[in-house]
Amino acid sequence: MAKIAYLGPEKTFTEQAARVMFPEAQPSALIPIQPIRNVIRSVDAEDAEYGVVPIENFYNGEVRQTLDSLIECSKAKIVSEKSFDIVHCLGALPNHTTIKQILSKDQALEQCSIYTCKKYPNALEISTTSTSEAARIVKDESRLNAAVIASESALKSYGFEIIEKDICPNNKTRFIAVGKYTPKQTGDDKTFLAIHPSIDRLGILSDISSAFKLFGINLEYFHSRPDGKKGYIFYAELGGHQEEAHVARAIDAVKYALDPKNNFPDTIKILGSYKNTHWKNED
Amino acid sequence: MAKIAYLGPEKTFTEQAARVMFPEAQPSALIPIQPIRNVIRSVDAEDAEYGVVPIENFYNGEVRQTLDSLIECSKAKIVSEKSFDIVHCLGALPNHTTIKQILSKDQALEQCSIYTCKKYPNALEISTTSTSEAARIVKDESRLNAAVIASESALKSYGFEIIEKDICPNNKTRFIAVGKYTPKQTGDDKTFLAIHPSIDRLGILSDISSAFKLFGINLEYFHSRPDGKKGYIFYAELGGHQEEAHVARAIDAVKYALDPKNNFPDTIKILGSYKNTHWKNED
Repeated sequence: MAKIAYLGPEKTFTEQAARVMFPEAQPSALIPIQPIRNVIRSVDAEDAEYGVVPIENFYNGEVRQTLDSLIECSKAKIVSEKSFDIVHCLGALPNHTTIKQILSKDQALEQCSIYTCKKYPNALEISTTSTSEAARIVKDESRLNAAVIASESALKSYGFEIIEKDICPNNKTRFIAVGKYTPKQTGDDKTFLAIHPSIDRLGILSDISSAFKLFGINLEYFHSRPDGKKGYIFYAELGGHQEEAHVARAIDAVKYALDPKNNFPDTIKILGSYKNTHWKNED
Repeated sequence: MAKIAYLGPEKTFTEQAARVMFPEAQPSALIPIQPIRNVIRSVDAEDAEYGVVPIENFYNGEVRQTLDSLIECSKAKIVSEKSFDIVHCLGALPNHTTIKQILSKDQALEQCSIYTCKKYPNALEISTTSTSEAARIVKDESRLNAAVIASESALKSYGFEIIEKDICPNNKTRFIAVGKYTPKQTGDDKTFLAIHPSIDRLGILSDISSAFKLFGINLEYFHSRPDGKKGYIFYAELGGHQEEAHVARAIDAVKYALDPKNNFPDTIKILGSYKNTHWKNED
């Protein structure tokens, strides 16, 4: 039976994503693995057929470990994407007192920061390994002055009172499935690139984006990051499949602009082509 | 006495950054505040003269809450930057057994993931509010099968044995000071922009980057993110001070390209101009 690895622990949004992305998988085929790097490596090493990890959240931004791990691997690539609304609620024990501390996973605390800074400006924020772990701690230790940020179902399963629902509106996380084979074209696909120029110079970004514009290719996501060695890596997600001629020619043009003598074969790495779900525009 | 707010708790790299960035400040003038949004808002509300927060780490990427909070504020802007090498070590109690769990702050666990996945592929990662909190928990609970990622000094102060030093090489965090007044030109400055086109269309990124190239302006950092409303916000950090003529003209050209009829005054927001420390190239 094909194994599907996902970022653990169990009972998180990533497990939910894995179930939706692989509806035919037996529950026992879904294997929680930590951290993200090990999920992607398990696919690369052929220990798992697929892996499911988060790649981007509206509030936290991209998940750097996911992108970096894909660069490090030789076989694992993005094969599909799926986004979910992440609805956070604030809850506390039914006999709670004035809230002096708020516990949750670090990313959830950051996502809900506009709400918590307004409503509980003096509360101490405490990070936990997962949102459900936050609820467990507050329940086990009977912390009556503590609130927890988690899903409504998680809070209710611990017997918490819901103080407020959906405290971080319009919050979405995009997940990807990682596999070894590039999906066929569907006519509405995207391609994710890591572009690593060997020589930094003025106007690199302009040259890259001009080449894509020239071929009528939309850049959905673009991010420059220092490579730790005085240069930059550019992450780009663009409209089209790597096997479409205009996409292949645009990638070729970018490669030429950055490395005309073809001295640096690692200048562009394709991290995957997959169906475009238009996740940002879903209601 | 002028108050300087910084992202708490105490005894973290952010406090160290605040001390170095404001060497003349009395220790009692440095006020730990959580989370980042409240630090920046305290400057905006004139409760503090300056605020110090992280903005970017080599491994984790930019700190989205810092950028978003600056957009939300009307007065607070970036006035200086300073980077620090972040040297993480792995430690455990002197009589530790085989390591089965690794505790640290979430960002530190992510930064050290290449090391931990290689050396301790089966260890459970546990997030804590800070690196020193991780050490406190392991010490108080005598967890002999646990290791902690923290600075060497923090590990030694808890009586830990150092298992390995500098497990995340070449790791840097850039901090910013936020204030209300734009620093004067020094001849080697940078400017941080938030560009929010009201209408999304093909080639926006190309137009923005071409305008900067036209005026000979280097883009040090560029990042597109969904705005949660079907459009994008672009964060750009560029060479030059907003009061330099060519920078002002380039910003004007970008504004024209995105909003020729000047219908959307919030299209470009300048988040600050400040001295360039060339932090990525420091050895």
